[in-house]
This record gives sequence, C-alpha cells and structure tokens, in this order.
Amino acid sequence: MKKQLVEKITAMDEDFAQWYTDVVTKAELVDYSSVRGSMVIRPYGYAICENIKEALDGEIKRTGHENVYMPLLIPESLLQKEKDHIEGFAPEVAWVTHGGEEKLAERLCIRPTSEVLFAEHYKNIVHSYRDLPKLYNQWSNVVRWEKTTRPFLRTLEFLWQEGHTCHETAEDAHEETLRMLEVYADICERVLAIPVIKGRKTEKEKFAGADYTYTIESLMHDGKALQSATSHNLGTGFAKSFGIEFLDRQGTLQPVHQTSWGFTTRIIGAMIMVHGDDQGLVLPPAIAPVQVRIVPIAQHKEGVLDAAYDLKTLLQATTRVDIDASDKKPGWKFNETEMRGIPLRLEIGPKDIEQEKVVLVRRDTGEKVEVANGQIETEIARLLEEIQQGLYEKALAHRLSETRAVQSMEQFDEVLSAHGGFIEAMWCGKRECEDAIKEQTQATSRCIPFESQAVSKNCVCCGEPAHELVYWAKAY
Amino acid sequence: MKKQLVEKITAMDEDFAQWYTDVVTKAELVDYSSVRGSMVIRPYGYAICENIKEALDGEIKRTGHENVYMPLLIPESLLQKEKDHIEGFAPEVAWVTHGGEEKLAERLCIRPTSEVLFAEHYKNIVHSYRDLPKLYNQWSNVVRWEKTTRPFLRTLEFLWQEGHTCHETAEDAHEETLRMLEVYADICERVLAIPVIKGRKTEKEKFAGADYTYTIESLMHDGKALQSATSHNLGTGFAKSFGIEFLDRQGTLQPVHQTSWGFTTRIIGAMIMVHGDDQGLVLPPAIAPVQVRIVPIAQHKEGVLDAAYDLKTLLQATTRVDIDASDKKPGWKFNETEMRGIPLRLEIGPKDIEQEKVVLVRRDTGEKVEVANGQIETEIARLLEEIQQGLYEKALAHRLSETRAVQSMEQFDEVLSAHGGFIEAMWCGKRECEDAIKEQTQATSRCIPFESQAVSKNCVCCGEPAHELVYWAKAY
Repeated sequence: MKKQLVEKITAMDEDFAQWYTDVVTKAELVDYSSVRGSMVIRPYGYAICENIKEALDGEIKRTGHENVYMPLLIPESLLQKEKDHIEGFAPEVAWVTHGGEEKLAERLCIRPTSEVLFAEHYKNIVHSYRDLPKLYNQWSNVVRWEKTTRPFLRTLEFLWQEGHTCHETAEDAHEETLRMLEVYADICERVLAIPVIKGRKTEKEKFAGADYTYTIESLMHDGKALQSATSHNLGTGFAKSFGIEFLDRQGTLQPVHQTSWGFTTRIIGAMIMVHGDDQGLVLPPAIAPVQVRIVPIAQHKEGVLDAAYDLKTLLQATTRVDIDASDKKPGWKFNETEMRGIPLRLEIGPKDIEQEKVVLVRRDTGEKVEVANGQIETEIARLLEEIQQGLYEKALAHRLSETRAVQSMEQFDEVLSAHGGFIEAMWCGKRECEDAIKEQTQATSRCIPFESQAVSKNCVCCGEPAHELVYWAKAY
Repeated sequence: MKKQLVEKITAMDEDFAQWYTDVVTKAELVDYSSVRGSMVIRPYGYAICENIKEALDGEIKRTGHENVYMPLLIPESLLQKEKDHIEGFAPEVAWVTHGGEEKLAERLCIRPTSEVLFAEHYKNIVHSYRDLPKLYNQWSNVVRWEKTTRPFLRTLEFLWQEGHTCHETAEDAHEETLRMLEVYADICERVLAIPVIKGRKTEKEKFAGADYTYTIESLMHDGKALQSATSHNLGTGFAKSFGIEFLDRQGTLQPVHQTSWGFTTRIIGAMIMVHGDDQGLVLPPAIAPVQVRIVPIAQHKEGVLDAAYDLKTLLQATTRVDIDASDKKPGWKFNETEMRGIPLRLEIGPKDIEQEKVVLVRRDTGEKVEVANGQIETEIARLLEEIQQGLYEKALAHRLSETRAVQSMEQFDEVLSAHGGFIEAMWCGKRECEDAIKEQTQATSRCIPFESQAVSKNCVCCGEPAHELVYWAKAY
C-alpha cells in the first residue's frame, strides 16, 4: 500500500547508475537543462552545497586563509606559460572567440582551474619574505569539456573552492599541502560521514604542473572508488615560469614555493553513493538541510496541527526542522521524507498527544522510538549524533570489507571482477606496470596510502622487488 | 611629517577618476590582471563582498526565497527565444565556439543574466497553481562585453545575485517586484549607509524583456548618479515564449507572471564614491571587515603589547577587531588605517595604561575620544552606531543639496554644468524628448520617483503638458 503512493526508484542492485539518476532527480537535487553536460542545482541540492561550503569555509579561514576572487577568463598566452599545465588542460577547456559582434585578437578560455591567474597576481604582490606566506582561497565555478557527464560526478561546469598559496620554503609548502589534505579528510569524515584513505598519487595521476599530489579516496556502494579531494605541492614550477620571486632573509632572490588544493560539488555525488539506499537519499545530519521533519497524524483532528506547530517552534532553536502539514496522505509524506534522506521523522497524532509523547523514526535504520514530551530535544540531539556516527561506521565497515590484498595479476583480476572494491597490491614504481594493470583490469592506481603494510615483496605486475603498496580500483 | 610616510593619493577635487583608481588599488581592494576589463578582488575587497552578501542573503531568505544554481553557458537558440531580451543582450555577450579541440555545432554564450535558463527550468517544474509561487535566487558571476571598464563600476565579469520568481497572478508579481526593491533599498540605506531614490525606469531604460523596471538611484561625491539595483516585472513575456503554463484554480491553463531582480558588486564602487575622502576609503561599520584597529603606541615598552592583545581578546567577542603590532611607525599605521577606511582606531600606550584608558579615533570625523577602561566596549558599540548613522546622514544631506529643480532646458544645461547632481524636471513621456535631453546635456533619465511633487506643468523639453517628474543626471 505504502509503496503505491510514491514513484518507484530503480533498485541499487538492479541498475546502480539508474538508481543514482533516480535519486538525484526524484529527491529534487538537480534538473537537467538544454546545456549539454550541465545541471540545474535545485533548492534542496543547493542547500546541501551551502551547508558543506559553510563547514569547509570555516576550516579554511580557521587555518589562516583569506578568500579572493580571480577572473573567469584566461588569455591563451597566459595559460601557456607553464608547459606541463597547458598540456594537461588544453584538451578540456572551452574557448571564447567572440565578444559581442567582435572577433577577439586572442582567444580566452574559461578557467578549468586558476593556477596561472594566481601566479600572475602573486608576481605583482610578492617581493620580500615579509610578504609570505600568501594563503588565498577562491570559491568559484570552473569548466572542463567532458565527453560523458553525470550530475555532480562529472559535469562541464562545476562549483568548487581552490586554494592557492605561496611560501618561503619548500618545507612550508610541504606542510601546507598536508595540512589542507587533513582539512579535507576531516570534512569528509566528520561532516559528510565518508571515510577516506589518505595518500599520494602516482606520477601518472598527479596534477598537471605539480611536484606531487596528495589525495583522499573513498569507496562507493557499488564498489567503485571516487577521488574526493586533492592537494598539490607545486614546488617552484609556476614560480619560475611566471617569475614569482622574493628577496629572502639573506637578501637573495628566490622563487616562491607553491601549493594548490581543491574540493568540489563532486563530493555530493560521493555522499549519495556512500549513504543512499533503495528508498533514496540518506543524509548525514551535519549537512542535512532538514534534520527533523514533523509529520502530523490525523491532522484534521482537533489539536494535532497546533501541537505539531508548537513542537516546530520548540525545536527550531536547536535543530533544522520543518513540518509537512499538506493534505497529502501520511504514507506519501513518509516516503517523501525517506526519499529526501531526512535523518529523523517525528510523528505526532491524537494518541501521542494524549499520552504526552511523540514517535521518532530514524532514516538510517528505520528504528522507531517513543519519546516522552520532556525528553524530545535531548533525544533528538542524541539520535542525530548517533546517526552521524552510525553512517560513518557503516561506510567504514563497508570499505574495510571491500578492500582485499592480492599477490598476483590472476588474483587481481579474479578479485576485482568478483567484488570490485579496493585492491591492495605492491607496485615497483614503473609507469609500464601501472599502464599494464589499467589495460588488463580497467583499475587505476588510486593512491599510495600514507599508512600501509606490505602485502608481498614483489610488484604484482612485473614481479620485480617492490616496496610501495598501492590502492587500485575502478573509479568514477 | 605624517604625510611623507604614506604613498600619496590624488585629491578628489583634482581628478576624481584618478582618486577612485588610487583608492581601490592602494586600499588593496583590487588588482589588475592581463584579462582585459576583469579584476582580481583581493582579500580586503572580497571580505567586503562577503559581508554585503551575508546581509543581503539573509534578507532574501527571510522573504521566503530559496537559492539555486543554473548553468554558466547558454545555447544561442535558448537565448533567442525571447525577442526583446536577445535584442538587448546580443551585442554584449561572450561566445564560446570551441570545447577542447572540437568546434561546437551551436555556439554558447556566457550568461549575461539568466532569465532564459530559469524560464526553461520553470517550464519543467511548474504545472499547477499548487506549484506557485516559485521564489528562487542565484549567486553567480556573469559576463557582459563592455568597451570601457573600471573596477567594480563596470567590468567584463561581475559577481551578483539574480532573483527569478514565478507567480499565480499579475498582482503577486507586482508586489514581489516592489518587495525586492524595498529589500535592496533597505540594504543600501541601513547596511551601506547609501541613501537611495526609489522609482521606475522609463520605457527606454527598462530591462530588455520586462514590462517595467524599478530602480534605486544614488548620488556619488562627484555629482554623478549610479543605478544601485533594479527589480523587473517580466509580466507574461517569458512565460509565453517558453510555454511556462499552469492550471489555475478554475482548471484553465495560464502563463505564469514573473519577476527578476539583481544586485551586484557595483555597489562597492558606489560605497567608495559616496563615503570616501582624500585619505582613502571610509567604510560603514556594518560591512567593514575590520571595525576597530588597535595601534599600540611605544610598543617596545613593557606591558604595551600585552595590554593591546588583552584588549583584542576582550573586544573580539562583539566586534571585528585586529591589531597592527608590526614594526612600522605609528604614523604609517595611522595612515594605513585611514586608507582602508577602518571606522575606529584604538590607540594604547604607556600613558594610557597608567591612566587606565584608551584613545579612540573616528575615521569619519577625525574626532578623538578618551575612554576609561570599564567603558570601552559600550563606547565602541555606541560610536560604531553613530558612525553608521552619521555616514548615512552626511550622504543624504549631500544628495539633497545636490538635487535641483529646473523649468527650462536653458536652466537644465546651466545647472547641470555648474553643479552636476540630480536634476528634477517634468517630462511629457515621449521618447523624442528623452533622447533630445540626453543629446543636449548628456544626462539620462534615472527614474520616475515613487514620491515626488510637480515642479512645473510642462515638459522641460517640448513644453507640452506633463505630469511626470523625472530625476535626470549624468551617470556611471
């Protein structure tokens, strides 16, 4: 009966990709538009973006960074100044060739990232060690010309923050690269309840123009990995190409040491695929636009709506709460609350009022709790915390159970096709082996984790001695 | 002596345009870049943007609107769907013709505004009167291909919010148009201390595609006007072109009634030119990134820095406060505090500590006040309020004294060339007269104010009977 009232979504096990599309559209996170590969972020989706932004922006400022804003458009000659960078990005930028009726003398690309704009500005404003460090961040949109796109996960345009910093010493830049990776990991784990593996990208997978790239990687419900954020140590490459130099404490002219790091709306795709289920979204309370939805039962009966609105007034000082007092059936309201991933549903009807209690229903476990009137606020606070923690632990247990060590390519192939998930395997460090593994299995190197134990002594591909353990996976 | 320590800025009376450029660069609001007509918004400038955004976003949400995000790029065919709209915007859009290496089948423009994207989305989601109203807002960047540009005032790319709403009735749309103009006026007057004149644009000056446009107009220090925000009633024009229809309460299919309204980073240019002086910026306390700067005097003496940092700790719970404990001379610090428009400077030295007091210096009037230790917090709160109010009153007095009624074109010419400012003059409503006035005087019609008294019975231009008073001015 209940099921008939709501539009059905595809089951995860049946077709995960279709399940994802159903969730993002039916939970009203996004709409499609006539702009290929772009999405309309609807109010519910944007409210999630805003909550994530607020949490991350707070951490970025707490760690001493200042927000700035750089131009959207980059002249072709500026983009070309750093050789590796342009090689990496040229195939995927959008080009503006006309302004109004006039053909431009030099074409401009829409920023795919803003290293070159920051580099040009830093050259203007950094002259002495007294000007360092410069710790800047920008919240903006960027465009990358992707062939196949999916809402949040891969879109022509996406929203992100990009940090860009300049430092006096290589050590300072290294510490910054690490510091911001930790900030990202903390936001993922504490706020989004997504457990991550911290590590370093291989040379092949690092950012175009960086000395090295750190990454956090997470595992989706379907066994595929998702790069959740990256932090790059740019070394002195951009500084030398752009001439960003400063007089050091000894009076010698030196190039600055730089970092950049980014976190995107992609993470919302990750959150959906880590926590969601066949009823729809499951949102961590820390970023849920609505943490508690009140559903009045038999709301036509005297006193029910009044009691429901009184509860809303009581709760809204401490909780993001709303009420569904529409004339839809309770079953429909329950389903919609589930579809939207609202952490707690609060039911209140004539019997509850008589017995001076309410019913709380958890989105994550389905568990129902009766709570006496005096206890509602404390119980909600306790449950929201328990749900937040529970989502993290469940996701962590899933990742751990879906991480498997292998010693040979046969085993690699077998385990990956049977289960997906993360494969732990040793690697000799040679590009040929990395390429061969991708060719044979479609798995890419996700990262060389900061913490690991060797699972054998030899490269899983060539058999030569190997000291580095790599996490491999098929990935979004 | 004091003046020698700081880079001189051009005096306002000497060259107002150069004064403006000096202020925006020396107060470190912006930097120029190699992207023609675009600006880098530096930390101090961006912090002002953030404070304005926070105030306005709060009002937009309080009045029931939800934030969303639409794509940056608009296919040419979509932009062309509303005839008046495309005619107005075609000459000033930037065109993307290539994505990566590939030439696009249809070119895309970078949004100059997003009416057509909202229209397309509304067509998807609005079906019944139950779906109305839709009250959406977007914070974004837009691009308009301007020939001559100046930081904040006119740039190729600018940041803004654009509201887009759909309503059941013409009356609802009319009320919304007015409501948002009032929100803008309130932000300008209460938060930015900029007095505004509310009124309606003439047909010639209205938004391309609107039934009518409301505007708020303010007067700069040099006697030129600046359009500070606009709110448009779009009527059913876009709804008919895009087929945004709903079943009304009688079961009849009707086009929705729409509005749009926008507020941009331009307002920062206005704020600079309304409050600034020959020492640099003057910021209203409500949006000043730093409201109080502590400058320790003889800071090498024992106890001074400790006392200064203790004060900072005390004040930061209620005030945006910082401290300049660098080894620069106090005179340099005073000048920099003035250049950046920080509302209050707090001086503390050995003598103050001994006498259990501090010295507060107002940026707006230069007035010095000695405040006993127990009174500092209350006195700062009181002074910040007084400064906020004082800036508004001073700007209002300036506008009133620079607004003059004229009865003939001779008088119009004479008064405008002698003083600039707002000219009040009657207008018959004919486009020919509006064009002739502009041709002869370079003044444009700023608005037909909501509140006014006739200053004569005849059109200032053709002499025919006229009932509408218009504010005219040279404008930014």
